[in-house]
Amino acid sequence: MNNLKLLNQSEVKKILTMKDVLQAVEDAFGSWGRGEVQMPPKSYLIFDEQNGDLRSMPAYLPGKNAGVKIVTVHPDNTSQGLPTVMALCVLNDPNTGFPVAVMDAGLLTAVRTGAAGGVASKWLAKEGSSEIGLIGSGVQAQYQIEAHLDFMNIDHIKISDPNKQATKDLSDWIKKKDSSIDISVTDIKNACDCDVLITTTPVRNPIVMDSMIVRPHTHINAIGADAEGKQEIEGNLVKRSNVIVDDWTQTSHSGEINVPCHEGWFTKDMVAGEIGTIVAEADSSFKNVLTIFDSTGLAIQDMATANIVLKKAIEKGMGIDWSPLK
Amino acid sequence: MNNLKLLNQSEVKKILTMKDVLQAVEDAFGSWGRGEVQMPPKSYLIFDEQNGDLRSMPAYLPGKNAGVKIVTVHPDNTSQGLPTVMALCVLNDPNTGFPVAVMDAGLLTAVRTGAAGGVASKWLAKEGSSEIGLIGSGVQAQYQIEAHLDFMNIDHIKISDPNKQATKDLSDWIKKKDSSIDISVTDIKNACDCDVLITTTPVRNPIVMDSMIVRPHTHINAIGADAEGKQEIEGNLVKRSNVIVDDWTQTSHSGEINVPCHEGWFTKDMVAGEIGTIVAEADSSFKNVLTIFDSTGLAIQDMATANIVLKKAIEKGMGIDWSPLK
Repeated sequence: MNNLKLLNQSEVKKILTMKDVLQAVEDAFGSWGRGEVQMPPKSYLIFDEQNGDLRSMPAYLPGKNAGVKIVTVHPDNTSQGLPTVMALCVLNDPNTGFPVAVMDAGLLTAVRTGAAGGVASKWLAKEGSSEIGLIGSGVQAQYQIEAHLDFMNIDHIKISDPNKQATKDLSDWIKKKDSSIDISVTDIKNACDCDVLITTTPVRNPIVMDSMIVRPHTHINAIGADAEGKQEIEGNLVKRSNVIVDDWTQTSHSGEINVPCHEGWFTKDMVAGEIGTIVAEADSSFKNVLTIFDSTGLAIQDMATANIVLKKAIEKGMGIDWSPLK
Repeated sequence: MNNLKLLNQSEVKKILTMKDVLQAVEDAFGSWGRGEVQMPPKSYLIFDEQNGDLRSMPAYLPGKNAGVKIVTVHPDNTSQGLPTVMALCVLNDPNTGFPVAVMDAGLLTAVRTGAAGGVASKWLAKEGSSEIGLIGSGVQAQYQIEAHLDFMNIDHIKISDPNKQATKDLSDWIKKKDSSIDISVTDIKNACDCDVLITTTPVRNPIVMDSMIVRPHTHINAIGADAEGKQEIEGNLVKRSNVIVDDWTQTSHSGEINVPCHEGWFTKDMVAGEIGTIVAEADSSFKNVLTIFDSTGLAIQDMATANIVLKKAIEKGMGIDWSPLK
């Protein structure tokens, strides 16, 4: 019994399904909304000279394993053939503290971020939404679309990204997933004329302007801003939208609203709701109004997802057993 | 290059020497005192029903790997044949974020705690100190003695503990280490008549009373109190001593002074010094006065020690290589 399970990325990939992760993330948001979980704030180590950082993210969902995700973000890694974001999850049995798993959490992070967007759209987008706009066509856009395909009848996706290769790759990937979906490659303004807008860019100056959002019910998943100084959405649009956060502390520090908060004109009382409370209360009151989901990623999403991975890995006999106490 | 090194406890044991750890912990304290390190506060997950907790402890010593120690404390574990304290250290390369090691950190925690006591006595005990008093004769007492043997000419050790077997085991262990040391098994009062007093008990009501400390220069390493509500030393003795902390936030929360702080009569301005500053400034001004070192254990001690382990493991070709990104 004194073994822990080691799971690398290809093993995690074989096990993870978006359907399972969507359910796990929605359940975790609900538990968060009901005040059942423990999730201390993320801790940061900053590597100024190396242009990177490390975030340790502990969380405990009662009835499941507790754990810590240790994630690093190094934008210059691509030149060395390494991912920008790398992560490990360590899971511990709350009964004894014994570490029961160490798993790669890079892919897991991408998938649970996609799932958070899916859950947000499920609760915040207008019933019958069928048109998605994508600002940014990198890898996270794929996970977002995969999550939305699970519950939404998508008939049209508008993609805006100056990178033609990334746009083509994403289009090809979508066609393979569902050939019935119309795909347009277009400008930002036209992409914003949609039911669900998903922004996944690393920009530091807003590119989604107030005037571009023309439908009264558009739901925006603001995914890109994940550090101080980043923002994708113009202030006036933030002002007239219902802003739903995953966690106030995180979003005001490093989410889409971090710049407005630092500028002083966006305050906690302007938040329209928290995704956890909306899920916990099955609150459908935001479905016909303009909404922005400010997603920064919660440790409970990671723990909920990692728990699924471990459970399935044990069932399937996957991974390597290692004994730390030997 | 995309492998990390897995090191279990017996491998760590083969590599770790108290001499190396003493130097690493002293260097880490010095860096801490000079403001060179990053060490966010410990985060806690509390398992109320299971009578346990998990602490995640990130730290970065520039020029070395960054990392997080994940440590659990479950006092009821002994009935299941598991240690009360279990821990893993994850080390990351600050250049890329890549996780370079996962190692068992249970033994490492015990050794670096012993080393902290050794460093504190080196700087705070009277020159020529030769008599040690031990209140509590569990495993941590061994590591404390091992650390003190490195730099102190010990001629007499007085042990006080109601557990006769533990007292005998510790006495036998000391005799093996150095047969020239006199060992007395005695009561708490007599043990307190010494140059260096080391308390390693889990008590919640003080057992070292003010009247028992009769030498004007006694240095006390207060190791036992590591959670809210625990204390080993009577308030009046705390009041008349020079209290040196490892970290104010930690000690006021869960160290020897946590109860006085919660009672409101011990405040930050009553702290006589921090071990980091004393090491950084080579401050010998406390050597002839009554001192208490309130040790709660810093993540930088863990990282400094884990870095030694990894470096030596690489030199010796020890451990298992595992590829999380595969």
